[in-house]
Amino acid sequence: MSMTQNQLEVSDVRKTVRRARRAAHVLATLSGERRIEALLAAANAIEARAAEILAANQKDCAIAQCAVESGELSRAMFARLRTSERGIAEMAMRIREVADLPDPLHRRLSAMELDDDLVLYKETCPLGVVGVVFESRPDVVPQIASLALKSGNAVCLKGGAEALETNTVLVAIWRDALSAFPDVPVDSVVLFHTREDVAEILKLHDEIDLIVPRGSNEFVTYVIQHSQIPVLGHGEGICHVYIHEDADLQKAFDVSLDSKVQYAAVCNAMETLLVHKEIALRFLPDMVAQFRAAGVEVRGCARTMELAATQGVIPATEEDWKKEYSDLIVSIKVVDGVNEAIEHINRYGSRHTESIVTESHDVASRFMEFVDAANVFQNASTRFSDGFRYGLGAEVGISTGKIHARGPVGLEGLTIYKYKLFGKGHTVGPYSKGQRTFKHRPLSE
Amino acid sequence: MSMTQNQLEVSDVRKTVRRARRAAHVLATLSGERRIEALLAAANAIEARAAEILAANQKDCAIAQCAVESGELSRAMFARLRTSERGIAEMAMRIREVADLPDPLHRRLSAMELDDDLVLYKETCPLGVVGVVFESRPDVVPQIASLALKSGNAVCLKGGAEALETNTVLVAIWRDALSAFPDVPVDSVVLFHTREDVAEILKLHDEIDLIVPRGSNEFVTYVIQHSQIPVLGHGEGICHVYIHEDADLQKAFDVSLDSKVQYAAVCNAMETLLVHKEIALRFLPDMVAQFRAAGVEVRGCARTMELAATQGVIPATEEDWKKEYSDLIVSIKVVDGVNEAIEHINRYGSRHTESIVTESHDVASRFMEFVDAANVFQNASTRFSDGFRYGLGAEVGISTGKIHARGPVGLEGLTIYKYKLFGKGHTVGPYSKGQRTFKHRPLSE
Repeated sequence: MSMTQNQLEVSDVRKTVRRARRAAHVLATLSGERRIEALLAAANAIEARAAEILAANQKDCAIAQCAVESGELSRAMFARLRTSERGIAEMAMRIREVADLPDPLHRRLSAMELDDDLVLYKETCPLGVVGVVFESRPDVVPQIASLALKSGNAVCLKGGAEALETNTVLVAIWRDALSAFPDVPVDSVVLFHTREDVAEILKLHDEIDLIVPRGSNEFVTYVIQHSQIPVLGHGEGICHVYIHEDADLQKAFDVSLDSKVQYAAVCNAMETLLVHKEIALRFLPDMVAQFRAAGVEVRGCARTMELAATQGVIPATEEDWKKEYSDLIVSIKVVDGVNEAIEHINRYGSRHTESIVTESHDVASRFMEFVDAANVFQNASTRFSDGFRYGLGAEVGISTGKIHARGPVGLEGLTIYKYKLFGKGHTVGPYSKGQRTFKHRPLSE
Repeated sequence: MSMTQNQLEVSDVRKTVRRARRAAHVLATLSGERRIEALLAAANAIEARAAEILAANQKDCAIAQCAVESGELSRAMFARLRTSERGIAEMAMRIREVADLPDPLHRRLSAMELDDDLVLYKETCPLGVVGVVFESRPDVVPQIASLALKSGNAVCLKGGAEALETNTVLVAIWRDALSAFPDVPVDSVVLFHTREDVAEILKLHDEIDLIVPRGSNEFVTYVIQHSQIPVLGHGEGICHVYIHEDADLQKAFDVSLDSKVQYAAVCNAMETLLVHKEIALRFLPDMVAQFRAAGVEVRGCARTMELAATQGVIPATEEDWKKEYSDLIVSIKVVDGVNEAIEHINRYGSRHTESIVTESHDVASRFMEFVDAANVFQNASTRFSDGFRYGLGAEVGISTGKIHARGPVGLEGLTIYKYKLFGKGHTVGPYSKGQRTFKHRPLSE
């Protein structure tokens, strides 16, 4: 099947999403082996057709280059858009890694005999249709498509306009690969391009089960406000590191520095450093010096200013505690103890990732119980909160919501369960009249 | 503490919800034993102060009686409003049953060594603050309050205006019982009364983690449309029973009749009966006779009309397949086979409960995989889909959504998880530079 035959009519969003929905009903019934075969075929096709992908990517990059020169596109976005032979090989490798993960479907979560010959199973199944809206990076296409296929879900992708050609070719290759399997529907993956398409997609709460917006805080908020579809994502990432009074100084320096400077633009970077007053004198001047040496702008509370006044620290205001800098800027606050740190975090944090540096297991446990966040760490950089690092294989996104899935979300977040009840003609009447009572006997297997 | 001291200022909804939020942060840290002690104290208090509850309920009933006479309130609503000594004893018993359930918190869902001395745990924790809006039945107050306390959540209740006095006394007793424990916050349960309060509550997406509307389809839709808070609930319950060609006739009669007539007004009652054409002649005339004898109005497709024309069957229209009657009415359609039944259900069903009557395990499995519903049954009445019958102890509600929790939702639906990472000063830098690689070694315990 040629690429053009597979090209989507993006004019009719609802029709396309309905085709994805019908595909989802079929995907839900495919065996784990079949889903693996289809994934490996897709990985092979991406490698075999690398030249097409590179050619398309060059077209996108040529246009993007002009946009960079005219200031419409940032250099960072441009860098993320460009792919290479090596990038394509990595795409294929990632798909094979996802194929290798344990099957998330048909897992039995519980089994109970409600009464004689009346057995209830709770088993995992796919969500159905997942919508994912993302920017630039073309490797998101195979990443999301592989997670969706592995978990038996159809996926509606909407990429950035700047990656139009690359995304189109990647989706066409994916669909071509699926078309070799008569029982695997090609509409498992459909692609949209425009903002108008997104606006239409957000209205389709009867057809789409979950929407994953990957983008700016403003965009995530827009999606939540404009759709009845459940949303998995994160707006802000206001992460903290708290240095307790008993902290090992080296660990405190290492964790703080890595959390801030290892990759400042991402959501799991630290924005505010909280420091126990009893360790502040020993810790802060050196820490500030390290930040300054790494090119970090430091904003401090009054007590921080006293301790590091000569080191170019700027006074922090209330606004600083609420701010996701996404840049080489850190705010520092000296606190009276772990309780004040917890209060500050629960008030200003975005429930993403919070780390404590302490040698005390009890203090760490208290911090972890009281802090309301998806990821709570002891003596580790906030930058560890990530699907790959967590061993999930890949991630659909990171969720700071508290419903369904939290933190880095992999395959499991794309599944739900159904209850299957097997009887022999059982009716509710006799239980309701008190003639029979339930046994509720858990079955072990 | 007297009741009046506990009375809420409903004038400031946001302030009250914030108090519940602070209570939630404390609740999350209580031990399982402490939560059980508080639950048992609440159960005892409800029994000990039965006279107060009955007096309040009589006030509500007196007003409601007038409303029934003037036609403003249905007799069914009135019946659900009234409680009794026995009803109160049952409330206490249900609370003790919930206390007895396994602790849903601090359950370890996974444990993995990411690298040496870097261990990641995934553990269950409470959602935080749950809003529940319900009608009439005062026993919902202790039911929801006990599920919330057992799972470490604060709860914002909004009952019907007709149960104002009863609900107020029940919540006051609950809060008084908690006030005996210095570490258990009384604001674990707060109560609202008016529609204006609900409108305010729906705006508080920063303070409330989940909203459970228990009421009409219109009300659930209103909540979904007017709030950014995730919603757990069900709009319609359009449930089907499909009789396969190999069905045991007696099972087919029993399951169909129980699914329709055992309690027609509820969401898990059957609305449409689908019948394989090969069994229709043997099954339908007798089935229709049984329905008619039970006072059920029968609406049939053309083929049904042919087989049961003389039995007072009314022709069904397209509208009938989309209709939740919630009454003693059934629509019947003859289908060519299990595929047509599955297609009909996936098109018109509300993803609630779907049952097949067949002697074939293979056909049942196929039906269960292809049908997109929370509950899929073989040879059992649709009326079994219920938290008590499933052995969940109690239910917060039934969900036809596919995110977070599905079907009857008990304690587990009120929990989520957090990731806890324990390191020794680990930073991401060395992994990012390729100096170290992750081990991702699952830990068994």
